[in-house]
Amino acid sequence: MQHALRRLEARGLVEARPKAGYFLSLRPESPTTPRSRARIVAPRAASVSDLLLDIMGRGAAFDLVPDPLAGSLPPGVLALNRAVGRALRRRRGGGYQYYDAPAGEPELREQLALQHARRGWPVEPERLCVTSGCQHALFLALMACCERGDVVAVESPGFYGVLQLLEQLRLQVVEVPASPDTGMDMDALEQVLDRWKVKACVVSPAFATPGGALMPEASRRRLLALAEQHDLAVIEDDIYAETALGPVPDPLKALDTQDRVILCGSFSKCLSRDLRLGWVSGARWHERVLRLKLVTQLAGSRFLQQGVADFMADGGFAAHLRRQRHDLRVNRDQLIDRLRRWPGEVRVSRPEGGLAVWVELDVGIDTLAAYDRALEQGVVITPGPLFSGSGQFRNCLRIGFAHRWHPDRLVALERLADVLYAA
Amino acid sequence: MQHALRRLEARGLVEARPKAGYFLSLRPESPTTPRSRARIVAPRAASVSDLLLDIMGRGAAFDLVPDPLAGSLPPGVLALNRAVGRALRRRRGGGYQYYDAPAGEPELREQLALQHARRGWPVEPERLCVTSGCQHALFLALMACCERGDVVAVESPGFYGVLQLLEQLRLQVVEVPASPDTGMDMDALEQVLDRWKVKACVVSPAFATPGGALMPEASRRRLLALAEQHDLAVIEDDIYAETALGPVPDPLKALDTQDRVILCGSFSKCLSRDLRLGWVSGARWHERVLRLKLVTQLAGSRFLQQGVADFMADGGFAAHLRRQRHDLRVNRDQLIDRLRRWPGEVRVSRPEGGLAVWVELDVGIDTLAAYDRALEQGVVITPGPLFSGSGQFRNCLRIGFAHRWHPDRLVALERLADVLYAA
Repeated sequence: MQHALRRLEARGLVEARPKAGYFLSLRPESPTTPRSRARIVAPRAASVSDLLLDIMGRGAAFDLVPDPLAGSLPPGVLALNRAVGRALRRRRGGGYQYYDAPAGEPELREQLALQHARRGWPVEPERLCVTSGCQHALFLALMACCERGDVVAVESPGFYGVLQLLEQLRLQVVEVPASPDTGMDMDALEQVLDRWKVKACVVSPAFATPGGALMPEASRRRLLALAEQHDLAVIEDDIYAETALGPVPDPLKALDTQDRVILCGSFSKCLSRDLRLGWVSGARWHERVLRLKLVTQLAGSRFLQQGVADFMADGGFAAHLRRQRHDLRVNRDQLIDRLRRWPGEVRVSRPEGGLAVWVELDVGIDTLAAYDRALEQGVVITPGPLFSGSGQFRNCLRIGFAHRWHPDRLVALERLADVLYAA
Repeated sequence: MQHALRRLEARGLVEARPKAGYFLSLRPESPTTPRSRARIVAPRAASVSDLLLDIMGRGAAFDLVPDPLAGSLPPGVLALNRAVGRALRRRRGGGYQYYDAPAGEPELREQLALQHARRGWPVEPERLCVTSGCQHALFLALMACCERGDVVAVESPGFYGVLQLLEQLRLQVVEVPASPDTGMDMDALEQVLDRWKVKACVVSPAFATPGGALMPEASRRRLLALAEQHDLAVIEDDIYAETALGPVPDPLKALDTQDRVILCGSFSKCLSRDLRLGWVSGARWHERVLRLKLVTQLAGSRFLQQGVADFMADGGFAAHLRRQRHDLRVNRDQLIDRLRRWPGEVRVSRPEGGLAVWVELDVGIDTLAAYDRALEQGVVITPGPLFSGSGQFRNCLRIGFAHRWHPDRLVALERLADVLYAA
């Protein structure tokens, strides 16, 4: 019964509410999915402009009106901070003069292994390496399996941080069209692989930014078959998995029989951006990943890792995720409801996880041009071209629902509509 | 008067004792300086064996008998932990959902700027970038100014972490002889530069590992002149500066009129290895350093940075350094005193900072071969070849004085002598 309900919940047909049970989702009629599709262009050197760097920095908080001091700490983060504080006060002896184990604190790796085992991937703690966030994990993964000039396939639209990484590592990028519902298009990937020599493919099977796509099992299996056929490294960006509004999907890694999926994750999206703790499991490249972790960072903060391990072990993390799941669903529904009142044709993704929707507006609307005008109104947007290495998606933007829709944010959403439709 | 005393203290002729004043140093007769000199060999790909990686990991704590739980936290670290705990409890609002500024928390960069200004280098906080430790800073520096295959000059003997970095970045290494008293030999560097095209030079002007050399001003000026003449990037590893037993020497960077010295520092040696906080000032490569910091790490932990900034602002850091300075001098003198009782000819450096001495034994003694036998006795040593990319210095080893010489460590030192002289 519970299992059947969880499956219905996964499909968005029922909704679990803490301490109350399951309810039929009275969700509004689903808005149509964005259909802008990336063009395939030949691999080229990745490059990111200074303007985009500035926008990325502001957009990383997923908030239209960034105000780090507003609101209150959720109970889960309060509990986390107490656990970290306790780990700090527990420090004894000369421990501050020692680095942690090269792969990170064993207690934390054990908790992470349990967390992944619950998602269909039983992993030994020895195969996990703690990093300084998911960006660090992606960096190690790309550096471990690629050489300068290699071609890397990425989702388009997709995560801009990967484009920056490719640029700094002097790698070439080829963009593969991705749908906001089902992620990277496997037909398109096959075309790309047939045409160019590709070394690695970066995908976010669980709730890819910007639209929150969830890659279906058939696509996952086809991706792994293509990876074998073309000898690809597959880098799985799993950072959004635990933001699932329903059951947390299994990682692609769980299907990896050839040891060629490098899994990268982090606490930044589902718990706190302040921890700077992520992890990587480097598959056949794991030894090189470990060495690169040592030379790039040497070590991690031990009391922080111990605090988070305690927080996971005593159930605080699971409780936090349960509460957050409910809040995120409310935030997402309110956002989509508001967007449906906008004039013109508005297509919006309806993700079952992640922290944002992908919005496609009338073709004439230019979100990049609107960026400065919105900023003058105190509204920070993440325009569509940010999610492309070739300036595509000008009539699209990502809008976050990580934060509660308090009145200031609702006003910002209205101002944004005014700015976008004024031009 | 105070100034004259500080100068005498810098030369080791008088000694400052907290709350007591200055005293004539009743130091034992100075043992002769080690004279093993590195051979210059042509640049080649850097490579580090697995065995050496294992030894490095154990040796990083500078302790013959590593026991992280022994002893008690020094008052400075207790105060630091309280400051970090307060910063954590002070967290309000939605701050946990935001990343820090790309270069790191402004409060911490201001404190670091003040700290460097006191050492003759007035720097704008905007020119400092917070990193995840000094290793991360060195990584960013090398990545910013070198391309795969470039040749990098390093001290020999010198810091093994740099050799690992060069290996992972596929750079070539050329070793320049360095003295345990005065650091890198400028005549030798000039020969190397005349013979091969070198892109960058990594030096530790203040208390270089393994011997704690302090580079004299004449060498510093000559290094900068050579750098200009040969268009070198100079990477200054400043990690040991604040372990000075006397006044803290100015950084090489303070003499840099051409914006080609990249300064790298950290709290790991002088305060705590658990913070994972370092910094870099990237000179003419600073923009690239900043971008690389973003893609390798994205952000740093904000409450940690705020806690350390508070600890510096309220004088806790300065007080910690004063107390530590006194302890380190006692530890160093006790170690040298013990080493002078060893049989055979024992040459020992007598550094005015850093955490270790460099010990040269009779030519027949093989410290690398003794590593396993010492480990069987529970004693961890850092054999000489660790500090060379070409296996030199087999009759040398580094011995740390970061920890108090409690009875267990004195016993370990005797066991070590037995192991070394038994063969």
